[in-house]
Amino acid sequence: MRTFLDCVPCFMRQALDAARMTTADEALQEEILRRVLRDASEMDMRLSPPAMGQRIHRLIRELTGNADPYREVKERTNRLALDLYPEIRERVREAADPVEMAVRMAIAGNIIDFGVPGRLHDEPLGRTMDRAATAPLHGDARSFADEAAAATSILYLADNAGEIVFDRVLIETLGPERVTLVVRGGPILNDALRQDAEAAGLAGLVEIVENGSDAPGTIIEDCTEELRSRFLAAGMVIAKGQGNYETLSNAPRPVWFILMAKCAVIARHVGCEPGSLVIRS
Amino acid sequence: MRTFLDCVPCFMRQALDAARMTTADEALQEEILRRVLRDASEMDMRLSPPAMGQRIHRLIRELTGNADPYREVKERTNRLALDLYPEIRERVREAADPVEMAVRMAIAGNIIDFGVPGRLHDEPLGRTMDRAATAPLHGDARSFADEAAAATSILYLADNAGEIVFDRVLIETLGPERVTLVVRGGPILNDALRQDAEAAGLAGLVEIVENGSDAPGTIIEDCTEELRSRFLAAGMVIAKGQGNYETLSNAPRPVWFILMAKCAVIARHVGCEPGSLVIRS
Repeated sequence: MRTFLDCVPCFMRQALDAARMTTADEALQEEILRRVLRDASEMDMRLSPPAMGQRIHRLIRELTGNADPYREVKERTNRLALDLYPEIRERVREAADPVEMAVRMAIAGNIIDFGVPGRLHDEPLGRTMDRAATAPLHGDARSFADEAAAATSILYLADNAGEIVFDRVLIETLGPERVTLVVRGGPILNDALRQDAEAAGLAGLVEIVENGSDAPGTIIEDCTEELRSRFLAAGMVIAKGQGNYETLSNAPRPVWFILMAKCAVIARHVGCEPGSLVIRS
Repeated sequence: MRTFLDCVPCFMRQALDAARMTTADEALQEEILRRVLRDASEMDMRLSPPAMGQRIHRLIRELTGNADPYREVKERTNRLALDLYPEIRERVREAADPVEMAVRMAIAGNIIDFGVPGRLHDEPLGRTMDRAATAPLHGDARSFADEAAAATSILYLADNAGEIVFDRVLIETLGPERVTLVVRGGPILNDALRQDAEAAGLAGLVEIVENGSDAPGTIIEDCTEELRSRFLAAGMVIAKGQGNYETLSNAPRPVWFILMAKCAVIARHVGCEPGSLVIRS
């Protein structure tokens, strides 16, 4: 997916939120914003929005000297989600269609996103889970379950810390033995790294692979050679979240996307209402 | 008031909304946005937000070749407000405190603002009037009425087209014979020009003066020498709307501001909740 003009004000909002999250120094916040404005004035709109997100957050890390500004947030949301883990499992176990419910819970976890401006993530997670359990699902969870059951191998591209606990339940429901979990190669926003996958209890369950990139999505040409090969060879690819959708919606192979459509641009691209729960290939 | 970092994403949103309002050519919209990004990366944050608004809209007029993109919108909102004129007068006439009710109605008219992103102005005006008639008023309408009654001359700085019909009722309530109405010197957003004041029926009622500037506010050093003198000499100055507040909050003379606080930055500066009805000197 390319960058749309509507993404531009949102980049500035994201840059400001991230700058404030990273430093209390207002002069530095202003410097970050000016650099992002200049960068954005020359950006290549054919690239996906996460390409700009990658630039913004590299700049913030460089200017503030903080290699991982969201470390604390990630640890907090991991703990928060782990507390909910028994409840998530229970909801899935009791559901008439456990795979569909696990997908719904994985989408509920997608609310934990510090890359989206506004206060989406201020809603208590329990309420988000209630909503996700019953709201209309945009897409075909039945086909997803069938494909997952038949797949010889599944490459699961994770999204955010905290959210990854919800992904764990979906992975456990699909059968973890065929799943390889992919995390980002370096800190970017609150996206999950290897240590977050470990904190979520996924280390003993699945193979964990880093993608080699610090983009808030999967810019495939920015990933390691190994990841690129696995991406093409996997029996099934599941990509979590908006950033992975934005970067892989035109991928040269089928990908199942599981996400909450958090902004009007994505919703229009998917063909659903903003806020919708989406599962689609 | 200076420009705050939170104004920056809002400038981009405004620029995009205005570009789309002015041209359907997406390449031109993109060019406008890129130019505004570059401009904003070098802006002087000590200036008030309308200084950037002035630059943005000059750029849009220059790049699109459209000298007054909001002409049609202004005419439509003038007609819309004129249809409501009898009702506004009636509400004021029937009120226990006619000046306060006229102030409230003038604030209701301030909803007609195409410079504020979002869909504030999509609420039916009748409902806005109901709300404005009863919502808490942040400020001292009694002192305002007393000062207005005692003033030998009143300089009334108008804000938007359409809204100016509501201002007419306040001016009629205060007594039009001492009032001089000031409009912008050139097209900027949907701000009222001389022809809008005339359309609102103010020509026979008060003297109308153009301020010589195309800023969406009153940047006093950008106004004519005559306006600057009158501004200092007037017995009382009434400034309508957010743009006039942003540009005159540090003016070297007392000014009564009448506005709806439409964004969090203004609300914080005023010391009220966003959406509040404000009258203050």
